Amino acid sequence: MPKIVDPDQRRAEIVLALWQVIHQQGIDGVSFRSVAKAAGVSVGRIQHYFASREELVLDGCRRMVAAAVADHGPQTLAADPRAALTSLLSAPLSDADEFRIGASVWAAYQAKAVSDPAVAEIVIAALTDRATVLAELVASARATAEGAPVEPTGEDRAGALRLASLSEGLAQRILVGAMGAAEARRLLEADVTRCVAGGDAPLGGP
Amino acid sequence: MPKIVDPDQRRAEIVLALWQVIHQQGIDGVSFRSVAKAAGVSVGRIQHYFASREELVLDGCRRMVAAAVADHGPQTLAADPRAALTSLLSAPLSDADEFRIGASVWAAYQAKAVSDPAVAEIVIAALTDRATVLAELVASARATAEGAPVEPTGEDRAGALRLASLSEGLAQRILVGAMGAAEARRLLEADVTRCVAGGDAPLGGP
Repeated sequence: MPKIVDPDQRRAEIVLALWQVIHQQGIDGVSFRSVAKAAGVSVGRIQHYFASREELVLDGCRRMVAAAVADHGPQTLAADPRAALTSLLSAPLSDADEFRIGASVWAAYQAKAVSDPAVAEIVIAALTDRATVLAELVASARATAEGAPVEPTGEDRAGALRLASLSEGLAQRILVGAMGAAEARRLLEADVTRCVAGGDAPLGGP
Repeated sequence: MPKIVDPDQRRAEIVLALWQVIHQQGIDGVSFRSVAKAAGVSVGRIQHYFASREELVLDGCRRMVAAAVADHGPQTLAADPRAALTSLLSAPLSDADEFRIGASVWAAYQAKAVSDPAVAEIVIAALTDRATVLAELVASARATAEGAPVEPTGEDRAGALRLASLSEGLAQRILVGAMGAAEARRLLEADVTRCVAGGDAPLGGP
């Protein structure tokens, strides 16, 4: 009986090896050969699932975004918007080893986005979607009444963008080893408190 | 009469070409050959000034930090601490083309710091020094009395780290094209106002 192979599962396994290569050698170290070696499979196997090196790199970027959304997607966040806000913003603030790989690969994709429009498209969409989800959570956390979803105001969107950028900057400091995760989480949580209490000037000013 | 050559000037010229290579191909694209080509000089010329590829990459990182400090060093900032704080934090918030190169090279060095201890040492020292300067400026801007330098409190240091991380996160969003520089500057300036007005919980809490 032939073995049943799920092509998506196979692609996911190859992408794990791709991330390992990016973590160790940067995106410019990616080739069918280096990824095949990291995955312990033949170059032909990689070529069977990915038409080009470019397609492999982009699929790795899309899967990284999808994994982050699956872990912290809005569907899991509805019950307690304040807790969901803190959880979503704190997710990248870890100095666990297994986390550093993902964070360094994401940093490499962000650096690549500067010169690669296809990578930029995926990264920008992810950052924009994240800001939108955060603005909805800020709006809900600020609303005293419960129940119906709250439409974010300009002030909510400004607060969400500030919190998102703060979280991203803190994650970068942790990643390079300039800050500990516990300190970063304290700073972030203080800012969530401040944001939910109000006081962000709306965007679109003078 | 022999031409007088300033070796430091020659190294600086080579480092400009190095940054161009890092911007276009990432740090892993750096070789004596690729930098010589970008500089329009021979490989031998590069080898005359740099003993190894590693030394060249590290010198480029050190020069990038030194240039940032020279542009926005504390000596130029004493007169108006609030303005100096805003200026130092806003410096990376630009979407001008000539600025993007420096920002993308710095992002590449930060990504490299994760797996390269020598690069990490330079990046961590730069981020730590920046936080120290910012804490002093926050302390001075908050002090009502003028004159003697003010020793930063835990609250000042927390505020400075938050502002630094916010500025770095905003810079990253600008760099990948997810945010405009004007919007980022508005968010940052609102946060400087908030920070100088006080209200940051000190670090080292529970």
